[in-house]
This record gives sequence, structure tokens and C-alpha cells, in this order.
Amino acid sequence: MIRVGIVGATGYTALELIKILLRHPQVQVTCVTSRENLGESIEKTHPSLRGLLDVRFEPFDASRIAQKTDFVFCCLPHGASAESVMALRQQGLKVVDFSADYRLSSLDVYTEWYGIEHPDQETFGSVPYGMPEFFGEQIAQAELVANPGCFPTSAILPLAPLVAENLIDPSDLIVDSKSGVTGAGRKPNLAFHFPEANESFKAYKVASHRHQPEMDDILERATGVITGCLFTPHLVPMDRGILSTIYGTNLQNKSESELLDAIQAKYQGCPFIRVTPELPTTKDVYGTNYCDITVRTNRDKIILISVLDNLGKGASGAAVQNFNLMNGFEETTAL
Amino acid sequence: MIRVGIVGATGYTALELIKILLRHPQVQVTCVTSRENLGESIEKTHPSLRGLLDVRFEPFDASRIAQKTDFVFCCLPHGASAESVMALRQQGLKVVDFSADYRLSSLDVYTEWYGIEHPDQETFGSVPYGMPEFFGEQIAQAELVANPGCFPTSAILPLAPLVAENLIDPSDLIVDSKSGVTGAGRKPNLAFHFPEANESFKAYKVASHRHQPEMDDILERATGVITGCLFTPHLVPMDRGILSTIYGTNLQNKSESELLDAIQAKYQGCPFIRVTPELPTTKDVYGTNYCDITVRTNRDKIILISVLDNLGKGASGAAVQNFNLMNGFEETTAL
Amino acid sequence: MIRVGIVGATGYTALELIKILLRHPQVQVTCVTSRENLGESIEKTHPSLRGLLDVRFEPFDASRIAQKTDFVFCCLPHGASAESVMALRQQGLKVVDFSADYRLSSLDVYTEWYGIEHPDQETFGSVPYGMPEFFGEQIAQAELVANPGCFPTSAILPLAPLVAENLIDPSDLIVDSKSGVTGAGRKPNLAFHFPEANESFKAYKVASHRHQPEMDDILERATGVITGCLFTPHLVPMDRGILSTIYGTNLQNKSESELLDAIQAKYQGCPFIRVTPELPTTKDVYGTNYCDITVRTNRDKIILISVLDNLGKGASGAAVQNFNLMNGFEETTAL
Amino acid sequence: MIRVGIVGATGYTALELIKILLRHPQVQVTCVTSRENLGESIEKTHPSLRGLLDVRFEPFDASRIAQKTDFVFCCLPHGASAESVMALRQQGLKVVDFSADYRLSSLDVYTEWYGIEHPDQETFGSVPYGMPEFFGEQIAQAELVANPGCFPTSAILPLAPLVAENLIDPSDLIVDSKSGVTGAGRKPNLAFHFPEANESFKAYKVASHRHQPEMDDILERATGVITGCLFTPHLVPMDRGILSTIYGTNLQNKSESELLDAIQAKYQGCPFIRVTPELPTTKDVYGTNYCDITVRTNRDKIILISVLDNLGKGASGAAVQNFNLMNGFEETTAL
Repeated sequence: MIRVGIVGATGYTALELIKILLRHPQVQVTCVTSRENLGESIEKTHPSLRGLLDVRFEPFDASRIAQKTDFVFCCLPHGASAESVMALRQQGLKVVDFSADYRLSSLDVYTEWYGIEHPDQETFGSVPYGMPEFFGEQIAQAELVANPGCFPTSAILPLAPLVAENLIDPSDLIVDSKSGVTGAGRKPNLAFHFPEANESFKAYKVASHRHQPEMDDILERATGVITGCLFTPHLVPMDRGILSTIYGTNLQNKSESELLDAIQAKYQGCPFIRVTPELPTTKDVYGTNYCDITVRTNRDKIILISVLDNLGKGASGAAVQNFNLMNGFEETTAL
Repeated sequence: MIRVGIVGATGYTALELIKILLRHPQVQVTCVTSRENLGESIEKTHPSLRGLLDVRFEPFDASRIAQKTDFVFCCLPHGASAESVMALRQQGLKVVDFSADYRLSSLDVYTEWYGIEHPDQETFGSVPYGMPEFFGEQIAQAELVANPGCFPTSAILPLAPLVAENLIDPSDLIVDSKSGVTGAGRKPNLAFHFPEANESFKAYKVASHRHQPEMDDILERATGVITGCLFTPHLVPMDRGILSTIYGTNLQNKSESELLDAIQAKYQGCPFIRVTPELPTTKDVYGTNYCDITVRTNRDKIILISVLDNLGKGASGAAVQNFNLMNGFEETTAL
Repeated sequence: MIRVGIVGATGYTALELIKILLRHPQVQVTCVTSRENLGESIEKTHPSLRGLLDVRFEPFDASRIAQKTDFVFCCLPHGASAESVMALRQQGLKVVDFSADYRLSSLDVYTEWYGIEHPDQETFGSVPYGMPEFFGEQIAQAELVANPGCFPTSAILPLAPLVAENLIDPSDLIVDSKSGVTGAGRKPNLAFHFPEANESFKAYKVASHRHQPEMDDILERATGVITGCLFTPHLVPMDRGILSTIYGTNLQNKSESELLDAIQAKYQGCPFIRVTPELPTTKDVYGTNYCDITVRTNRDKIILISVLDNLGKGASGAAVQNFNLMNGFEETTAL
Repeated sequence: MIRVGIVGATGYTALELIKILLRHPQVQVTCVTSRENLGESIEKTHPSLRGLLDVRFEPFDASRIAQKTDFVFCCLPHGASAESVMALRQQGLKVVDFSADYRLSSLDVYTEWYGIEHPDQETFGSVPYGMPEFFGEQIAQAELVANPGCFPTSAILPLAPLVAENLIDPSDLIVDSKSGVTGAGRKPNLAFHFPEANESFKAYKVASHRHQPEMDDILERATGVITGCLFTPHLVPMDRGILSTIYGTNLQNKSESELLDAIQAKYQGCPFIRVTPELPTTKDVYGTNYCDITVRTNRDKIILISVLDNLGKGASGAAVQNFNLMNGFEETTAL
């Protein structure tokens, strides 16, 4: 039985994580931390956990957490996260970090896009990116894993096989993504106030979202090919789900079925990637750890479509998948 | 041409009010006030007004407003509203007040439910309730009108004719209301954060909502009969619309068509009340100033169903209807 | 390992049932029937099952089903269901029936409300109602169980303890229920076409819904007390969830905490009933088999509020709970 | 006063058209036709018109329509529409046609994409495309106008100024569009059944939607430049609104403000095009005839974003704008 702690447990990713872990036969959630709601029962903050988990919010204290847990999921924002991760690692705890702090390869890119000095430059750059489909062996041996961003996951999984095989022009990739509102977190804000977000659709952070450099960075690590992704996120009036529509030039004039085969071949044995000739919807993967992928061709272009649950394969599902590998459990346990 | 000012113009009722007034041939909106966004163009706060209204937010200053306007709609919360209304009235301005400050008859009830001393006890109690279907003559002669609450409107309009005719037992009325989220205002708050309110349904302020005493108070003023309403509001995952389901005992064992006739008879000549044998939906009245009403019977009970748009007949539509009467315009202008 | 068949497997309750059963360690779904989509893979109809269940739709054939399964869930409409259940029972199969065919006690009531002669009058009236909180022993020994209606579950669970203890006037109960749209089934219909149902709220079948007599019938079987429920269902623009607001007279002038205690006392040891002083939302029980209950008092009335997932405790969750009891498994397995 | 008829009046575009025309001081709707609901009052089909329009559905009969009307809006599907338009034109009636039958320039393209022989080849190709921003003079003199498709409007309006000025590479344009569900019409269908479309997002008709050739055809007529649009529509869980995100190469390396200026310059004096540096949302134009446009640049790409209401500028708003021009009214009347 692994005793698990969750740092920063008031948000949606933490709630989804707890729901998954409650189904895990080898896990006991023994500690949750928060800067707010200290001392309160977790079900006060997350009423859907009513009667299911008897823990109270504690302040962050690495040595105390080390006494109560064997493994920690860190759900803090960037910057704050690296600081907590450092403290937890010093206590010898294994960690999956949900933030962007350990995802990138270049400190310069990190500083440019995140606007801060990285607090843990020693470890930065050597942490496996938590996408078992490409970095499974490293993850299995790691004590710290950087859980992927939701949008990058939806772009990298469909793109990497075609980029690796030189089937799509890597230099000019357009990633047009659409996300449900939980992706924006749980902190109230006018843009996500119900009457603002409901019955409306909008683009945001066009040409300036931090997930754009993450896509290029990880695609290169996964395929060895330098890519140029142009990324536009949009907000969909729904709770959860991401669909990405990805456009690139069809370098070898392959047919749809040839392209599907190329993607399928790469993901043989990957339990959470479902390649399909059908057009998938976000509802097909609601509440799951699946990423469904299809492809279409038109004129000289390839159109890739991927769907995932931003709280599933886009966050907490992937985190438990990484946790399973890091602890020698069956990859699919609880998922 | 009447120059109109709007005090507290950052919320949904103010936006809806402006949209209606932009269609009004006799109105020019010349002044909008706010405590936030001072000096900013109104379209920054309300992007749907892009290019339509060239005014900037000013601080509240009664004498300045008096120079620029002839008539003011006051969209402030209770307490603050009465203070502003006093200042505006001293300048000789006509006012429709959206708050609850001038709706009730009893200062004791006001203090009990609103928890403050009323700032304008002299005027309190002598202001017409802005429901032209019952108080049209007083409204036409008034310089200050108390715009009704959204839930009370949805309860009083169907109930009053049956209460007045002794067709329904006034002592035991259950008002089960369901409202879209704009009814909760525009201030971000966890309960109305999209992923909390979407795909969810809940009751709130059960047996403690301030609209309960307003229903009883106005029903008595409209019919002369003392009533006992038990009111439960619920939040519906939609932008706008209220449906109230109202239960009471069928005192004279009338049929559905007799009851419909009784309601219809009362509202002859009322352009915004539509009595129908069909079950109306909130969508039937979306964006309008209508209140649609039907009735069913079962066992010894009458079941009344009313629908209205909480921003229309429940707020800004009613306000313009009152404005029209107060200024001698056709009651339906711009509505 | 129990081999399970699902008769009428194209709808939402069947899909939810399959998703639950896929988590059940003692179950294999070996047969699904449908009148449509014959021969097609189930994932064509239910794309969320992509890659998860390799079965194809077969026509209904009781003897063939008996060869392939040990237990059948019957998800057909009333009338058709009883006919299939008879054939399946003749083959010796254990059955949970989702329809209303075996729920009621009186054939006259059945004929009055369902408008047909019951096809299986011999068995009718002797089948346990699948609510383990009241009929668990009978269910455990039964070979056929009538799965409860979603609205009746939401009314009976909160009401029964108070009715049994004479704390609420049984003769005058108002059940005002609100349901998500999956409750209306999967067959396309104008009323449930997205632009009709979205951003709208409506009552339907007021004073004429078939779940009204089911509430009274089962409340009497559960408590020995004759009740008079007046039931009004409403449609909420969301996928799933039921909230019922129930009004009755507070016979003994009990406080909220006394009433909560009375309900809590009844459900000691019932793993899926969560009694809480908080106002629960449908989202608290989304995707689960829980029913959360609270109580408020006002004037001389008790206001009960219950929430459940119409596809969970309101249908497929309850069905698996019954299945577990009928097969000697832990009641909570897979739930 | 112009007497107006509406052919095919049971759908959402017809309903929106009627609501706009009820505000038009020079219009009386005197005739509505339908193949269904014959003889029924229009408010039975469109309950929001309760009490507002006293007409009943008639079968299509051109000579009868000619007696009762001066002008007809034809809201039939392609193929059927051209046949009705021919008959109405023979009666001398002026017509705005909502279908695609008269939009294209090439019969071959029409036959390829619509799969039928065009019934009115004589007139085909000589009908103005109802986009006053480009074809206003022809529209003002026309007796038949082809009302534009919703998606093409959202692509042509932002693109045409940049294509005309050689600011964007016309040969490689990606139009990624997202639409509310009313765009799919009012006929019930599983894909648009509430629980299928709600809380889900999907692409459809990828690389095969009939609006793709319309975009290229009209862009060429508006600018003289041959374009190559690749079009992907998506379905958003909301009633109304289209947002298109359009990608193309920045040929002259212009800045965002230079590009905005170029677009703004083209639309000087166009009352319904609002060019803005802000990112517009579909809610900004909900229920209106506006199209809001902005632009962003990234790497070597231009990203255009446009929003409109698919029932407003995307259908019925544009139709009334055309109607106004065809009849010598102020272009903005009732809009």
C-alpha cells in the first residue's frame, strides 16, 4: 500500500486525481495540503467526496509530508511548484509534478515564456516528460516526473508518429485547440463566470500560450525533428474535454488509411491511444485516460484530429499512469 | 428626447437595459456610472456594445448627473441604492430603482430581511411597486418607482388573480422557482464559476431568500388578501429565464379552463402577460418582456406555471415599461 | 465469472450499465441485443466503448441468450419488457428489469397509467422492488427484480423515513423534480433537440407522469402508510442528474437536525445514502450511485432535497447494486 | 407597407426572420408556408410567437402567395428552393433565397458538391450574392438575391480585404470554424439530440463541407483573386454563434495594426462590420447582424478571427439587410 500526498488539493485536477486514486487498490491518500481552507475537511471543498475520504487540509511542510506519505502529486502553479518539489525531493519522496516547471529542455525558453528565474536549475532539464508512449522507460526509473500539459498532449500524440516518419512537414504545423472550462482552473474569474462562458465561444492567448514552446520541445525530444507549431487555444462552453485540429502539409501524398496505419503502428501496445477512422468527439473520452486520434486529407494537407479529457489524459489520468509505472504497477490500474 | 443615466452600469441588468434603450426612439443614454472601470469606455466592460454607445464610466455625482440627464435607472445593491436615489431625487430627477430598497411596505420586515437600517425612511413605504398590471396609475404619476424582484414577479402575476377571487387557499402557497445564472449578478464567485454551475442543478437559500417576504407583501397590496408563501429558489445551468411552479389548494374545485379564464380576465389589455393552455418554457420568453402563464389541476391542488426572462420582465424590461408609463410613452415602446 | 446479457442495449442506461460492468471483476458482458443496428459492433453505436467491448448486436432470442449468459439486464420499454422477461425467465435466467412492468402492486393502476393489458399477470405483484435500502433481503433471494424509476427513487428515499415515523403529513406531499435530459432516452425528438432543450427550462407531464403512482405504491410498501404524492417533473438543460424538492407538513414541529437524525438513523449501513446538513447539488453525485439528502424547515413545512444521478442510483447503478445482492457479491462492487 | 411571405417557415432561420420583421415598421408578414403543420397557427410551432403573429401554415402555391405578398423569403433546402424560387419569380415576386441554389458561379461545381442537376440553369450564375459589403449595388437593383452561407460569411468578410491587397497568401488558407447547433437546423437527429451534443465538441464533414467551394467562389468574385480554402467545421454545445479562426501566410510581413487598418479601411461605412483589436467572442454578437473581426500575427502567419450569429449575419439578419436594400429602405432598419 502506497501512502499518497497531494500538494495543492483544492482544484479540479486534484479532485479528479483523488477520484481515480480512490479506485486504486494499492493507494491510500493520507495527506492533502492547501494554503486555503486549512484544517477543513476535504469534503467541504469537494462535496462530491462526501463520506469518501477523511482528511483535512494541512499547510505545506515537507518533513511532515515525508512522515505521512511515500509519494506526492504536486498540483501547484509553476514557480511555486518547483520550490515544493525541491523540498519534497530532499525528503526522498517520489513526485509527479503537474506544473510546467520540469517539462522544458531549455532554461532560456522557460524564462522567456514563464517570466521567472527557475528555482531548481540543477534538476531542470533532466526530468522525464510524463508521456509513457514515448518516455516509458525513463519514467519507470524516475523519482520525479513532469506531467505533460493538456494541449501539448493533444498535439504531440497525433503528430509525433507522422513527424518521425517524415510524413508531415514539421516546419509549418497549425494546432487549433478547443478546451472545456475546467482547463482554466477553479479560481473564480470574470472570463469563466457562468454567464460569460456559457453560450459563447472564444479564442484566447492567440499566438502567446505557453503550451506552444512545450509542443515543439517535446516533439523534438520524441522524434529528433525540429518542429514549428503555431498554437491557438479556444474556450468551449463545457466542463471538460479537448479537441485539437492539426494542419500540416502531406509530404508524401499518403492516403488517409496509410496515415492511420502509420499512427497505429507507433501506438501498438499503448493501452490509452485509440486510433480510429471515425471522427471522435470529446464525449467519447469523457472521464477517461484515452486519447482518440483520426486523420483526414484534403488538397495537399493532412488534418489530424485528437480528443482527450483535459482532466484525464490531459492531467490526472496521465499522472496516475506515470505513478503506476514509477511504482511497478500495471500501467492501467485504476484507469 | 429623454436623456437617461444609468447608475451602476457594469452588470447584466444594466447591459440589458442599455440594449433595450438603444431601440427606444425617445431616449439617449448620456451618462453611466460605476465605482470600477472609471474613465473607461463602456464597450470595454460590455463588448457587445462595441461601436454602439460612446460613453465612459463616471463616478456617482448626483449634481453632475442632473446636468446630463432627465431620468435615471439605479442598478445598485440595496442600501447603496437608497442613498443614491435620495441624492438623485433631491436633484429633481425621476428614478426607477432596481434594488429592493423601496419595494416593501414595512420597515421592520426590511430591517429583518436586509439586516440594515433603511437610509430613506421618509420615502420608504410610499413608492409604487413597478408592476403596471396592478399599479399602473400610481406608476404613471410617480417620480420614483421600485422595480420588482424577478422571483416575486414570477409568483405574483400568476397568483394574484386567483388569490383575489378566492380561488386558491392564500395561507399555504408553495413557490418553487428555477432561475438562470444571470440572476446571481456578474460578480465572479465560486458558486457561479462555469465548471461549478454547468451540468449541475441546485437549490439555494432555501427558506431564507429575501424575495419571500416581497411576495407576501405585494400580493396583499395587489389583492387585499394576506398570503403565506413558502419560496425555494434553484439555479439552472443556463444564462437567463425563470420558471416558477406554484402549488396551492383549489378552494372552489375549479377546472383548468375556468382557472385560465379567471387569470385571462384579469390581464385583458395587459400587453406583456400571455395566458396559455400550453406548458410554456423559459425559451418562449427569452430576451422579451413577456410573462407566460398556465395552470394545471391535480387532486385538490392548483399548479400554476409562469415563465419570464429574469433580465426582461424580471428586471430591465419591466424597468423600461415603467419608464414608458412615467413619461407618457406607449407602454410597449422598445419592448 | 458471471456472463451477462443486456437486452435493448442502444440507449443511455445500457451504455452506463456496460461502463459499470466493465469495472466489475466478476462479470463478462457476452451478449447485447437490439432491434436496430443488428450485426454491428457495439462501439459503432456507443463510440465511447471504442476498443473496450467486442460484441455485436443480436436480435432478441431467449434460448440463444440462455446459452451465452447467466444473468440479463432488460432495458426495454414497458410492455415489450415484460414479454422478454417472461421468455428469459422460462430459460431460467436471472433478470433485472429496468422497465416499469414489475414495479407496481396493482394491475388496475398499471392498466390505468400504462394503457395496456399486462402481459405477465401471474408474476406481476410478486417481484421485489429493487431498492436495497428497503427490500434488500427479498432482492438477495430473488431471480427477478424490478429496477426502480429514477424520480420515485429520488422521492422515496428522503420521504420514507419521515413517513414511517409519522413526522410528515403523508396525505399532502408535493414532489417537484428536475431532471437532466438523458432521462428522456436516446431517441431523437423535437423536445430534446439541442436548440430546443438548451438554454431552456420547462415542466412536462404535469400531474400526469407515470412515476406519481409508483411513488405512492412503494412508499406504502416501504412504510405501511398510504401517501398522496403530487408530482411535477421538469427538464434541466444538462445531461444527467435529478434533484427533487419535496414539501410536506411538519407534523411534530421537529427541527432540521432532528429530521436529519431521523433520516440518518434509517440509513445506517446503507453505503449509497449520504445524509448531509449541506444543500447537495446534482454534480455532487454525477456518475455515481449515491443519493444525497438534506432537509430544511420553514413555517409549518418540511422541505426535503435529494439528488442522484438518473443513470446511476436512478437506473444502472441501482441495477448493479441489485445484481450484486442477487449474486452474493459485495453490494458496492464496481460502484 | 410591404407584404412578406415566408416559404418553409418551420425552422430556426424562419423564426429569427419573423422576429426581426416584427420590428420592421414597413413590413407585414402575411403568409407562411410549410409542408408540415398545415392549417396550424404559427405559434403552435414557434411558441415564442405566442400572440404576436396571427397566420397559419399554408401549402406552397405560387399564385396564391403572389396574391397575398409582395416579397418572399425562401427558407427551403437546396434543390427544392430553386424550384419554388422559379415559380415565385414567374409571379413577379421579389425573393431572397436562403439556400445555396443561387450562390455559386459554376454549374459544374454546383453539381459536384450538391449532387443534383440544377433546376434553374437559366438564372443560375447571374444572381447577386447577398453580401452588401461587396455586392451592394447589384443587390439594390436585384429582384432575386442569394443569401450567403453562414460559414462563408465568417470567412469571406475577414479574408477578402487581405486577399484583395495581396497581404495574405491566397493559395493556402485554412478556415477552422466552430458553430452553434442551430446551424444544423431544427430536424431532430441523433447527432443533435441534447445528450449527444451537450458537453461535447466535435469536427464534422472535415474536408467535405459544401461551404468550402462557396468560400473560394465568392472570394474570387469579391477580389478577383483565386483562393484555396481548406475548411473544417466543428460543432459547439451552444445554440447560436460562429467563430472562425483563419490561418494564412503573412506575405508582406505586416504588423497586427497594419492588418487591422487594411481591414478597417475596406469596411468604412459598412454598419455591420466591427473591426477591433480585442479578441471577440460569439456572445458579443449574439442576436445581432454584426460580424466582429480581429487579427493576430505569429511566426510568418496571419491569424484572423471573426464572429457572427449564424442566425443573424449568417442567415436572417443578412436576409433583412438585403431586403432593405432591395426595397430602398435604410440598410439597418429592424436590425
